[in-house]
Amino acid sequence: MEIQDILRQVKEGTLSVKEAEGLLNMGSYEEMGYAKLDTGRRERTGFAEVVFCSGKADSHLLSIYERLYEKEGEVFGTRASNEQYELVKARFPQTVYDPVSRILKIEKEGKPRTGGVAVCTAGTADIPVAEEAAQTAEFFGTYVERVYDVGVSGIHRLLSRLDVIQRANCVVAVAGMEGALASVIGGLVSRPVIAVPTSVGYGANLHGLSALLTMINSCANGIAVVNIDNGYGAGYLATQMNRLAEQGGA
Amino acid sequence: MEIQDILRQVKEGTLSVKEAEGLLNMGSYEEMGYAKLDTGRRERTGFAEVVFCSGKADSHLLSIYERLYEKEGEVFGTRASNEQYELVKARFPQTVYDPVSRILKIEKEGKPRTGGVAVCTAGTADIPVAEEAAQTAEFFGTYVERVYDVGVSGIHRLLSRLDVIQRANCVVAVAGMEGALASVIGGLVSRPVIAVPTSVGYGANLHGLSALLTMINSCANGIAVVNIDNGYGAGYLATQMNRLAEQGGA
Amino acid sequence: MEIQDILRQVKEGTLSVKEAEGLLNMGSYEEMGYAKLDTGRRERTGFAEVVFCSGKADSHLLSIYERLYEKEGEVFGTRASNEQYELVKARFPQTVYDPVSRILKIEKEGKPRTGGVAVCTAGTADIPVAEEAAQTAEFFGTYVERVYDVGVSGIHRLLSRLDVIQRANCVVAVAGMEGALASVIGGLVSRPVIAVPTSVGYGANLHGLSALLTMINSCANGIAVVNIDNGYGAGYLATQMNRLAEQGGA
Amino acid sequence: MEIQDILRQVKEGTLSVKEAEGLLNMGSYEEMGYAKLDTGRRERTGFAEVVFCSGKADSHLLSIYERLYEKEGEVFGTRASNEQYELVKARFPQTVYDPVSRILKIEKEGKPRTGGVAVCTAGTADIPVAEEAAQTAEFFGTYVERVYDVGVSGIHRLLSRLDVIQRANCVVAVAGMEGALASVIGGLVSRPVIAVPTSVGYGANLHGLSALLTMINSCANGIAVVNIDNGYGAGYLATQMNRLAEQGGA
Amino acid sequence: MEIQDILRQVKEGTLSVKEAEGLLNMGSYEEMGYAKLDTGRRERTGFAEVVFCSGKADSHLLSIYERLYEKEGEVFGTRASNEQYELVKARFPQTVYDPVSRILKIEKEGKPRTGGVAVCTAGTADIPVAEEAAQTAEFFGTYVERVYDVGVSGIHRLLSRLDVIQRANCVVAVAGMEGALASVIGGLVSRPVIAVPTSVGYGANLHGLSALLTMINSCANGIAVVNIDNGYGAGYLATQMNRLAEQGGA
Amino acid sequence: MEIQDILRQVKEGTLSVKEAEGLLNMGSYEEMGYAKLDTGRRERTGFAEVVFCSGKADSHLLSIYERLYEKEGEVFGTRASNEQYELVKARFPQTVYDPVSRILKIEKEGKPRTGGVAVCTAGTADIPVAEEAAQTAEFFGTYVERVYDVGVSGIHRLLSRLDVIQRANCVVAVAGMEGALASVIGGLVSRPVIAVPTSVGYGANLHGLSALLTMINSCANGIAVVNIDNGYGAGYLATQMNRLAEQGGA
Amino acid sequence: MEIQDILRQVKEGTLSVKEAEGLLNMGSYEEMGYAKLDTGRRERTGFAEVVFCSGKADSHLLSIYERLYEKEGEVFGTRASNEQYELVKARFPQTVYDPVSRILKIEKEGKPRTGGVAVCTAGTADIPVAEEAAQTAEFFGTYVERVYDVGVSGIHRLLSRLDVIQRANCVVAVAGMEGALASVIGGLVSRPVIAVPTSVGYGANLHGLSALLTMINSCANGIAVVNIDNGYGAGYLATQMNRLAEQGGA
Amino acid sequence: MEIQDILRQVKEGTLSVKEAEGLLNMGSYEEMGYAKLDTGRRERTGFAEVVFCSGKADSHLLSIYERLYEKEGEVFGTRASNEQYELVKARFPQTVYDPVSRILKIEKEGKPRTGGVAVCTAGTADIPVAEEAAQTAEFFGTYVERVYDVGVSGIHRLLSRLDVIQRANCVVAVAGMEGALASVIGGLVSRPVIAVPTSVGYGANLHGLSALLTMINSCANGIAVVNIDNGYGAGYLATQMNRLAEQGGA
Repeated sequence: MEIQDILRQVKEGTLSVKEAEGLLNMGSYEEMGYAKLDTGRRERTGFAEVVFCSGKADSHLLSIYERLYEKEGEVFGTRASNEQYELVKARFPQTVYDPVSRILKIEKEGKPRTGGVAVCTAGTADIPVAEEAAQTAEFFGTYVERVYDVGVSGIHRLLSRLDVIQRANCVVAVAGMEGALASVIGGLVSRPVIAVPTSVGYGANLHGLSALLTMINSCANGIAVVNIDNGYGAGYLATQMNRLAEQGGA
Repeated sequence: MEIQDILRQVKEGTLSVKEAEGLLNMGSYEEMGYAKLDTGRRERTGFAEVVFCSGKADSHLLSIYERLYEKEGEVFGTRASNEQYELVKARFPQTVYDPVSRILKIEKEGKPRTGGVAVCTAGTADIPVAEEAAQTAEFFGTYVERVYDVGVSGIHRLLSRLDVIQRANCVVAVAGMEGALASVIGGLVSRPVIAVPTSVGYGANLHGLSALLTMINSCANGIAVVNIDNGYGAGYLATQMNRLAEQGGA
Repeated sequence: MEIQDILRQVKEGTLSVKEAEGLLNMGSYEEMGYAKLDTGRRERTGFAEVVFCSGKADSHLLSIYERLYEKEGEVFGTRASNEQYELVKARFPQTVYDPVSRILKIEKEGKPRTGGVAVCTAGTADIPVAEEAAQTAEFFGTYVERVYDVGVSGIHRLLSRLDVIQRANCVVAVAGMEGALASVIGGLVSRPVIAVPTSVGYGANLHGLSALLTMINSCANGIAVVNIDNGYGAGYLATQMNRLAEQGGA
Repeated sequence: MEIQDILRQVKEGTLSVKEAEGLLNMGSYEEMGYAKLDTGRRERTGFAEVVFCSGKADSHLLSIYERLYEKEGEVFGTRASNEQYELVKARFPQTVYDPVSRILKIEKEGKPRTGGVAVCTAGTADIPVAEEAAQTAEFFGTYVERVYDVGVSGIHRLLSRLDVIQRANCVVAVAGMEGALASVIGGLVSRPVIAVPTSVGYGANLHGLSALLTMINSCANGIAVVNIDNGYGAGYLATQMNRLAEQGGA
Repeated sequence: MEIQDILRQVKEGTLSVKEAEGLLNMGSYEEMGYAKLDTGRRERTGFAEVVFCSGKADSHLLSIYERLYEKEGEVFGTRASNEQYELVKARFPQTVYDPVSRILKIEKEGKPRTGGVAVCTAGTADIPVAEEAAQTAEFFGTYVERVYDVGVSGIHRLLSRLDVIQRANCVVAVAGMEGALASVIGGLVSRPVIAVPTSVGYGANLHGLSALLTMINSCANGIAVVNIDNGYGAGYLATQMNRLAEQGGA
Repeated sequence: MEIQDILRQVKEGTLSVKEAEGLLNMGSYEEMGYAKLDTGRRERTGFAEVVFCSGKADSHLLSIYERLYEKEGEVFGTRASNEQYELVKARFPQTVYDPVSRILKIEKEGKPRTGGVAVCTAGTADIPVAEEAAQTAEFFGTYVERVYDVGVSGIHRLLSRLDVIQRANCVVAVAGMEGALASVIGGLVSRPVIAVPTSVGYGANLHGLSALLTMINSCANGIAVVNIDNGYGAGYLATQMNRLAEQGGA
Repeated sequence: MEIQDILRQVKEGTLSVKEAEGLLNMGSYEEMGYAKLDTGRRERTGFAEVVFCSGKADSHLLSIYERLYEKEGEVFGTRASNEQYELVKARFPQTVYDPVSRILKIEKEGKPRTGGVAVCTAGTADIPVAEEAAQTAEFFGTYVERVYDVGVSGIHRLLSRLDVIQRANCVVAVAGMEGALASVIGGLVSRPVIAVPTSVGYGANLHGLSALLTMINSCANGIAVVNIDNGYGAGYLATQMNRLAEQGGA
Repeated sequence: MEIQDILRQVKEGTLSVKEAEGLLNMGSYEEMGYAKLDTGRRERTGFAEVVFCSGKADSHLLSIYERLYEKEGEVFGTRASNEQYELVKARFPQTVYDPVSRILKIEKEGKPRTGGVAVCTAGTADIPVAEEAAQTAEFFGTYVERVYDVGVSGIHRLLSRLDVIQRANCVVAVAGMEGALASVIGGLVSRPVIAVPTSVGYGANLHGLSALLTMINSCANGIAVVNIDNGYGAGYLATQMNRLAEQGGA
C-alpha cells in the first residue's frame, strides 16, 4: 500500500488517524530537552527503552530512571558504576546492582522466563560480557543456561556440555583473544550462534578487532556477529530469536 | 553427563553405540581423498552440504555433484561460473543456473516454502548478493519477499514497504557504500535484522570493510552481521531464524 | 508540527493529501522491477536523477536513459565506457561523451551558467576526477573556472592564479599523493573548499586513503571532504553552494 | 596576471604597494616569539583568529586573550578547561564558559544572527560536539536551530522535525557509532549537509573512524565531511555556507 | 580408527574406558563455579596449568594457587603485581616474585634443567619480556642462556656471542621497534628462532604491530612468531623444542 | 670469546683461518653478477639454497638450476609455473613438477625420510599451501603424514585423526578464513604447532590477515606462526623441529 | 625582510623586478594547456624537470620530451614502457631505454660523475627499484657503487662489502619483505642511510607497508625513509646529499 | 676483499689485529650486566652514545650518566622527566634540563657550532619535537636557525622566512595534523628536507600516522621521513647532512 493511499483513506475516513499512524510506524516520543525519549519503542520493537548509564550526568540518570519507572514499572540499565548504584538506590531502595555485568536494574517480581538460550564463554575473563548478555536476555523473559570457560584450547570441556548447547534456541558465544569458539560451536548446532568478540587479550588482539575478524570470517554457517564487548546487543538478539521460537512466526 | 559416564554406560550396555555417538555428536564423514565429505552435517545442523563452486577443478566439481545428488536427490552450489553450468548440465539436464546470484542447483520439485523472510537491498548493484541470500533461503524451504533498491538516500521508498518488512520473521539487509540501511530497518522492526555488507562502492569503501564497520557499530539493536558479500551465510541464518518461528523451540 | 497533527488535518480536510505528502517529503517513485526510480528527487533535492553507468547491463542502461530523457528532456551519466557511448548514441544521436571525465550526457541546449566555482588540481593525473566535478557542476548550471596543475611542490603556480581562486563562490581542490593542496588553498580563501582526494600515487598512498586522511586532518578551516575520486559528489556539493550564493537563503 | 607584471606595475607606479600586497594575499602577522599571530586572517578569510585552548600554558593563554581582545574587542576559544575559565575570568570578568561545549569566550553584546543552519545529533552523547559547532556558528553571526537526539534507530523523531531541517541553508549532522544520520538527512534536503563523525561508541567504532568512513562513503549526495569530533570546523564551514546564502556570490 | 570403532570396542570390552578416553583425548576437568580447571592438561600437553594473574580477584587467585599447589606441589603465575605477591606470600611463605618478569611462583627445589635455549634481546627495554620467556622455560626444565642488548644497530655485539646462539637447541629473539633482530639471527643458526615482537618503541611502532609484521615477513627461514610481548608463549614453545631435542621423537 | 681474541689467535697460529671463519660463521658466497649465491648456507643452517622461481628471468632461472645442480646434485624450487617446468625439463629431463604445490625439483633418488610431521588443512582450498609445506619437509628428509579437510566446522573429522596428530614431532596447521584450526590442535597436542594462515576466503579475510591475527592471538600455547601462504617456511621450520627430535640437542 | 619591504624597494627602485622575483622565489612556468611546465625548477631546486611517463598519452609524452630537450638538451623519464621507448626513439634516435629500471632518457655525452653513493639491495628482486635510484643519481652527476643481494639472512655478504658502504657519502638501502637491511647498515656507517621499502614479498608484507614500518621504526639512527618503490626519490635525495659533500655548505 | 683474505693476512702478518678489526668494523663494547654499552659507536658512526631516559631505573640512569661522563666528558639524554633532572643534578650540579624538549644534558663549554640547519614547525604545539631536533643538532656541533609557527594555512608566514630556509644545508620540517608543511618547503629549496610527523592533532590523525603518510607520499622531491615525534632522529640526520657540507665527502 502506497503512502498516498494511506493519506487518501485517512481523508476518506476509511482509516483512522491511529491506524494510519500504526501503518506508518510513527510512534510518538517524549521531548525531555536534552533527549527525545522513544516512548513508541516497545510497541514498535517489542522492547522497552534501556538506559546506557556510562557517562550520564547524575541528574539526567535519575530523571530517566524515574520517568521510565513511572511508565514501565521497571528499569534496566547497562554499564553502570557503583556510584550510580548508590545514587539510584537512594531513590529506589529495590534497585539491584551486579558489579560483574555492571547492570543496574529495578525489576518487577515474578516475571516468567521461557524458551532457552545458552551463553558460553571461552575464558573466565569473558564472563562480564557474557553476564551482560545473559541478564539482558533474562530481563526480557528468556530462560538462560550458562556454559562458561569452555575455550577451544581444552575442547573436551565444550564437548562435555554439548547437550545444553544443542538444545538451546540459540547460542551466544563470547570470546576474546582469537575468538575461535564461535566457529567450533557453529559446526555443532542447528540453531543460530550469536558471536560476541571481547577485548580480552593483548598485543595483536587489537582491542577485540582480531576476534571480531575471526568471527566474521567463520568457516561455520549460522554465525551472527555483534560489536566487541556488546553483551547487551547479544542478549537482545538472543531474546528476539527465543521469542521467534516461543511465539511463532508472524 | 561426563564423557567418562558415557563410555562407562556403553561398556555396561546401558547405552548403545549409536546413542553414545549421538550424544557425542560424532557424525560420520566420507573420505574422498582430496576432501572429507561431512555426511553427518544434515543431522547435526539441519542443512545438507552445499558446494562452493569457485575454483574447484572440473572433475572434483562433477564428482561432488554426483555424490551429493545420489545422497540427497538435489544439490545446491554457490559462486558458479557459466562454464561450470555447462559442465554439470551435460551430466544432469535438469540443472538450473542463475547468472545474477551465480547459483547452480539441481532441486527437487514441489518443495514447500513456509514462514516469511524479507530480503532488502540499498541499491541495484547489491542485488547479486541479495539473490544469493534469497535463493539460499528458498532452497532450504523459506518463503522470501524481495524489497530491492530502498536505500536511505530516498527513505520514502523503504517506508512505503514497511508492511512487508515488519511482518517478516527476520529481515536481510544488503548494502554497500556506507551500509546505513541495516540501522534504519533495525529501528523499525521487532525481529532480527541480518546485515550483509557488500563490496559495492569505491574509494574509502575499503572493498566493503566500511559497510561492515557501519553495521557492527549500529545504534539500532537486533543487528546480526555476516561477512562482506556473504549472501549464502545470510540466507542460511535467515532460514535458521525462520525455522525457529515455524517449528518452535526445542 | 507532529505527524499526528498532519494526519488529523488530512482527516479534517484542512490539509490536502498532496500537501500532507509534501510535508512528509514522501515523493513518489517509479517501480522498474530491478530498480525504484526516485522520481521525487528533483523536487526534494533540486537535482534530477543521475545515472552511474559503470556495470549496468546494456538493456537496463538504455531503458533508464529513455525513461529519464522522456521525463527530463536530458540525461547525465557518469563512469561510462566508450561501448556505452556507442550504445546510447545509436538511440540518441545527440549524445555527447568525454573520454577524460567518462561523462555520457544528452543535454538541453542554451542552458545558462551562473555564479562561479573554481576547480583546481595538484597534477595532470588528477584531471579526470576534476573534469567529472567541473562538468557535473556545469550540467547543473554552475559557471566553472579550471585551474589545473598547481600542486604545492611549485607553489608559485598556485599563487599566480589566486585572483581566480579567491573570487569563486567555492573551490574544488582535487589532489592525490599527499593531498596537501586543500590545506594551502584553505588558508587563502574566505569561501568553502571542497577537497577531493584521488587515488593518484603509489606505494603508501593506499589507493587514495593517505590523501583522504591529509584532507580530513587539515590545519586550515573550511575544508569539506568527499570520497576518493568522487568528482561527481564534489560537483554536486559545489553546485549546492553556488546556488546558495546565487539564489540566497531559504 | 603574472607575478612579474605585478612587480613591474609597482615599479612603474601603476600599482600601489598596498594593492600589490592585496593581490599577492600577503597579509601581515605579529611575531610573538613562541607564535606568529596571523593578524591578516580576518581580511583574508573573513574570520578572526580563534584560540585552541587545550594544552596552552597559562601565561601564553592569557597574553593571547589580551592581545586578541585588544585587537577585536572579543575572543573565542575552544577546548578550554574550567581552570582556564577561572584564569581568564580573573582578568576579564565578562568571560563566559560553557562546560558542555568547552567554549570560553568574551563576546560583544547585541551581535545580530542571520540566515539559518540546523545542527542535528544522533544521540545525546553527541551533544558536546554539536554545541561546539552551534556556538561557533552563532559567534560568527549565524542563526542556529538545534535538533538533537534524532538518530536513525527511531527515525520518526527525525521525520517530525523535517520542516526545520529542510528550510536551513545547510545542515550539520553530528553522529558517532555507525554515523548513518548524515546519509538519511542527505536524501531529504536540497542544501549541503556537513557531516561530523564523533568518537562516541565502543569496540569497532575505532574512536570515530568507523563513523567517518560511513559518512565519506555516503550513498546520498551533498555530504561534506570534517574530522572526528571537529565541531569547530563544522561551525566554521556552516558559517561560510550561511554567508554565501545571506551575502550572495562574489 | 573411527570413533564408532572405539565405542564398539568399549562395548565389546576390548578397550577399557580409560583407554578409550585417552584415545579421544578427553581429559577430565574440575568445575570451580567461575572456571573449569583443566586438570587433564599436563597429560595431554606435557605442561601443568599456569595462572595468568592479571585481573584476577584476590579470592579467586588464592584459591587457584591453593588448588594447583595441592595437585602439583608447585604453581607458576605470570603478569602478577606486587600486591598479589603479598597476598600469596601470606599463605605460602616460600613464594618468589620477580618484579621484572612479573612472575609469581612456588617452585619445587632441586629441579634439573637440561638442553639449552638462548634468549636474546635487541635492547634493555625488551628484558621484561625476555625474562618472562626465560623463567617460563626454566620452570619447565630448560637450561637457558641470556644474551641481552645485542640489537642490530651495533651488530658486533651479536656476532661476539654467536657461539652461544649457534649451539642452542632454539633461540628466542625478543625485539621491539623495528624488530630486525630475528631476521639476522635466523640467517646465522641451523635451529628454529622463536621471534617475540615487543611493544617497546613509539610513533609508528603501532604498539608492537610493526615489529610483528617485520618478523612475519622475515627473509630468513626458520622464524616462528608469537604474539606481541608474549614472553610466556615463547618460553613454552622453546621448552617444547628443547624437549624434542632432549627426549627425541615420538 | 671476543672477536679480537679470534683474530689474535689467528695471528698467533693457534687458530687456523678455516677455524676462525667457522667461528665467525663467515661462509663464502659466489658472485653471479646479478646475485650473490650463498654457498655457505648449508654449513651454516643445515639447508641448501632453495630457488624462489616466481618472477625470475628464464636465463637466470636456468643458470641457477645448473649452478646448484652442479654443487648439490639436486635442486628444489618453489612457486614455479608450468612454463618454467618446460624450460628446466628441456635441460634436465629428470625434473619433476607438481602443479598443485607449484614445486619444481630435481631430486636425488632413494633419500630416506625419518621422524614424523603431520600437515593438516582446514579445507580443500588450503591444500596447495599444505603441499608446499609437506613436499618441502619431505625434500629435506622428513616423514610427513597428511590430514586434510579437518576444519573446525565439523570437528569430528579432526578428532577421528587425533592419533596421527598427537604422535607427530610437530604439526603444521594450514587454514584460511578464520584460521581457528591452529588453536584447536594446539590444545590437543604436546608438540609445537606451526600455524600457516592462508589467503583462502573473501570479504573481511583481508587476504589472509584475519587468519594471521587469529593464529597470533591463539588462546592455546605452543603455536608458532609464519607468513600468509608461506608453506615453504612451514616445511622448513617443521624440518628443523623434526631434526631436533631425530638428531638430538647440540 | 618583509614582503612589504620588498615591494616598497621595488617601487623606490632600490630593488630590480628581477631581484624581487628571486627573493620571492617566484620562478616562472610555461602554460601547456593540460599542464604547467615548472621552468623555474632547476634554478629553485638544482634539478631540471623529470618526466613520470606512466599513463601519459602518446602525444603529451612526445611534446614534453620535445619541449624539455629543446630547453635542457637532455631529458630524463621514469616508469616508461617499451612502447613509449619506440615512440620517443622514432623522434630522437639517441634515446636509451633500460627495461629493468624502466628509465627512458636522452642524455648529454661526457657528463662527469663525482663524489660517491652506495646503492644496496637485500635481494635480487629489489634491483629494479635500486637501478631507478642509481641511474637517477648518475644522471644528476653522482658516482654510484652498486652492492646488490646483501640481505640480512646471509649477513657475511654485507660485511664483506663494508669498505664500499662506509666510504660513501650516503647509502641507499633498498629492501622488501621485512626491510631489516636499513637498520643493519645504519649501525655500521657514519653517513645518512636512505631507506627505500619495496613491494617485494607476499602475504603480510602489505604491498611494502611492512617494510616501510620497519624502516620508520629503525633502532639505528640516521635513517631517512622514502615511499615504497620510490627509487627515483631515493636517487634524488642521494644526489642532494652527495652535492652537499662535493660542493660544501651554503 | 673477502673475509678469508683478511684472516689470511692477519695470519701472515701483513695485517695487524687492529687493522683487521677496523675492516670488520668490530668495535668493542662494555658489558654492564643489564646492558652492553656500545663504546665503539663514536668511532664507527661519528656520534657518542646518547641516553634515552624514559623508563630507566634511577640507579641505571645514574650509572650510565657516570660512565658516559667519565668516558666523554659530557652526556646527552632525551625524554627525561623533571624527577630525573633532580636525580642527576644531585650528582652533577652542572646538569641542564629543558622541560620543553625534555633534554637532560651535561655539556662541555665553548663547543663551536658550524654550518647551518633550519628547523621549522607548522604550529606552536609542534615546538617540543622541534626543540628536541634543534638541541640534538646543536649538541653535535650544528648551527641551527628556528622558524616556528609557519604552517600552510597562513602561507605568507613561511614565504617571509624563505631566505633562512633556502640558505640552510638542510631543513627539518616538523608538523602534525595533516603534515603538509614538508611538501611546500620541499618545492622551495635545493637541499634535503627532513620531515618529522608529530602526534599533534585529534580524530583521524591516528596519533601521527596521517602526517607520516602525508610526508611519505609527498609530491615534492628530496623529502626524508623519520618516525612520529622523533625529534632526536631528525637532529641526528640533520647533523650528518650538515657535516657532509662542512667536512666534504670521503
